[in-house]
Amino acid sequence: MQAKKITVLGSGLVGSVIAQDLSKKFLVEVIDMNEHSLQTLANKKNLTTIKADVTDFNTLQKLVSGSDLVVSALPGFLGYNVLKNIINLGKNVADISFFPEDALSLNDLAKEKNVTAIVDCGVAPGMSNLLLGYHYSQMQVEYFECMVGGLPMERKFPFEYKAPFSPIDVIEEYTRPARLMENGKIVTKPALSELESIDFAGIGTLESFNTDGLRSILHTMRVPNMKEKTLRYPGHTKLIQALKTAGFFDEEKIDINNVKIKPIDVTAKLLKNIWKLNKNEEEFTIMRIIIKGKEKNIDKTYEYNLLDKYDVTTGFSSMSRTTGFTCAAMAHLILENTFNAKGIFPPELIGSNTNSFNFVMNYLSERNVIYKKTEY
Amino acid sequence: MQAKKITVLGSGLVGSVIAQDLSKKFLVEVIDMNEHSLQTLANKKNLTTIKADVTDFNTLQKLVSGSDLVVSALPGFLGYNVLKNIINLGKNVADISFFPEDALSLNDLAKEKNVTAIVDCGVAPGMSNLLLGYHYSQMQVEYFECMVGGLPMERKFPFEYKAPFSPIDVIEEYTRPARLMENGKIVTKPALSELESIDFAGIGTLESFNTDGLRSILHTMRVPNMKEKTLRYPGHTKLIQALKTAGFFDEEKIDINNVKIKPIDVTAKLLKNIWKLNKNEEEFTIMRIIIKGKEKNIDKTYEYNLLDKYDVTTGFSSMSRTTGFTCAAMAHLILENTFNAKGIFPPELIGSNTNSFNFVMNYLSERNVIYKKTEY
Repeated sequence: MQAKKITVLGSGLVGSVIAQDLSKKFLVEVIDMNEHSLQTLANKKNLTTIKADVTDFNTLQKLVSGSDLVVSALPGFLGYNVLKNIINLGKNVADISFFPEDALSLNDLAKEKNVTAIVDCGVAPGMSNLLLGYHYSQMQVEYFECMVGGLPMERKFPFEYKAPFSPIDVIEEYTRPARLMENGKIVTKPALSELESIDFAGIGTLESFNTDGLRSILHTMRVPNMKEKTLRYPGHTKLIQALKTAGFFDEEKIDINNVKIKPIDVTAKLLKNIWKLNKNEEEFTIMRIIIKGKEKNIDKTYEYNLLDKYDVTTGFSSMSRTTGFTCAAMAHLILENTFNAKGIFPPELIGSNTNSFNFVMNYLSERNVIYKKTEY
Repeated sequence: MQAKKITVLGSGLVGSVIAQDLSKKFLVEVIDMNEHSLQTLANKKNLTTIKADVTDFNTLQKLVSGSDLVVSALPGFLGYNVLKNIINLGKNVADISFFPEDALSLNDLAKEKNVTAIVDCGVAPGMSNLLLGYHYSQMQVEYFECMVGGLPMERKFPFEYKAPFSPIDVIEEYTRPARLMENGKIVTKPALSELESIDFAGIGTLESFNTDGLRSILHTMRVPNMKEKTLRYPGHTKLIQALKTAGFFDEEKIDINNVKIKPIDVTAKLLKNIWKLNKNEEEFTIMRIIIKGKEKNIDKTYEYNLLDKYDVTTGFSSMSRTTGFTCAAMAHLILENTFNAKGIFPPELIGSNTNSFNFVMNYLSERNVIYKKTEY
């Protein structure tokens, strides 16, 4: 039997890890506009690279015509339209572009085109959804909390933070109001609100604050209380709040010696320097999921803890390992027919399928991405 | 006998208080380019206002020709040249423009023109110099420390600070290396360095850090250890240091969407909003002076504490009371012939004259600006 063929769109930090992981078993073709980024994947077994612009429908059509599956690891602002095109081309897809638009709006189209599309295939959203979805199918969930963060090992003044992606996207998280579920109702709270100190084994005390990360589960899961919080080293939030209050995130142009400029653009430019994650700089991903409810009429709490660090051997950042391997696992689910329902599926809708859930957990565990489970 | 005539250059916060204080006893003419600022002084007894540009030598000559004394309360960047012109016109002068240039470089000119010029007539520099100069003439001073700050009563996130002058000037204080005297040698330390927590009766804990405020006394006083520190509410310094480290005070232009801009200009513009001291907003001036040494061969420490608050009755800010009244007192010294040496005199050179020292202390005390003295 001939090996199946996968097209990976995007060869950034995450895309390149997905491509390398999938190429162990499948033939992978990676497409990007950036030649420099493609070069890191040159001359690897089962991997070919192509420079092309996949936002052009005809180009995309030619490139994916022989593919068994497409993985979309594009920047968020491109993600939605490309996903729509992939579906229109009748190709199954695992998507990790985290676009801002509502993926479920493409559900009817995907069904019509007989396409399986798994979206938000990362850590959070991603694994947080999968874990909730799994327990949701086993018990009456009353409370869900996801705390998650990606942080550098070395804590450097003043932010003690590095961003593997654009500062503008991080600032967006720090400014967009957070939607939470409280007593069955969606409520909106300011970003950065409800600051708490939380201890994590192996890391110490971090601070958590509200961000707008629940996304699809606000609509797919009937859980009366749900929140998502971002984790940072203590003090980060106060500094961010200071910048925000002083106007450094303002999007309205101000006049500086007859030049009009948005303060946020200046801030993003400066933060790009100081937040730059250097090549081979050690970082980690930390997540705690708390799921409470009634299982067989008994009060039950499940807690999952992830602490994944930069891999010295492969040089893969923890961020790209934890998100990329999850996406690769989802790709396997589709390719190996473990999951074959048609439509748009955020991972909480995969979790209810026990085979799929176990497959993903094992897949990650084999790659040393461990979700440590405790229950009480 | 006809009342003496004083010309006050500048009708800003400080100039207008000086003018009103001096007009109780003298005929005062106030000159400014800003009509709006002059209007606050309209229709007051013994006060006339004139709109004019005093940086023009001929204009200045005409305006001060009939004056017995000039008070210069101009912005710092104009101060030095105007002072030079005043001296060239042979007029005695009390200067509170705090210009960056070295005033003592005009000493020969002032002597030649038979002019008495007292400069730096504020709080610090100003009263700090006067107090040091006084004790310097009475004892062997081994240590001098001046801690000083102007702060709002209401502490508001994130800076807990308001500036009655341009943020650029405050940022300059936060970036210019501080010169200190240590064991008889001038040493340079970074601005904001040597952060300490200090308690003040009636205010609580403040933080102090090195700033470059010793100015003339580095050269006029032979004291082996001297430092000047700025006072702020706790946390302010860390936030300033964060902005500085992240590049928000950078003076090199950066490119934002093909527009070149200095980050410091954007920062100053934003801080101007958030640091704006509103009309009638309560603020205070706090200063602690420590003078240690041997007096008649015995170890002796003098400590002076000033805590002056916004005056509800007059609406005069503490900043303008404490600096303006000091300058007005210096003007009296010259006009009433209490101090009549010729040349340039920073206040430490006035302090050795006991009559002058006592006059200034009484003048301030009558206006409820109290330097509380303790000795041990």
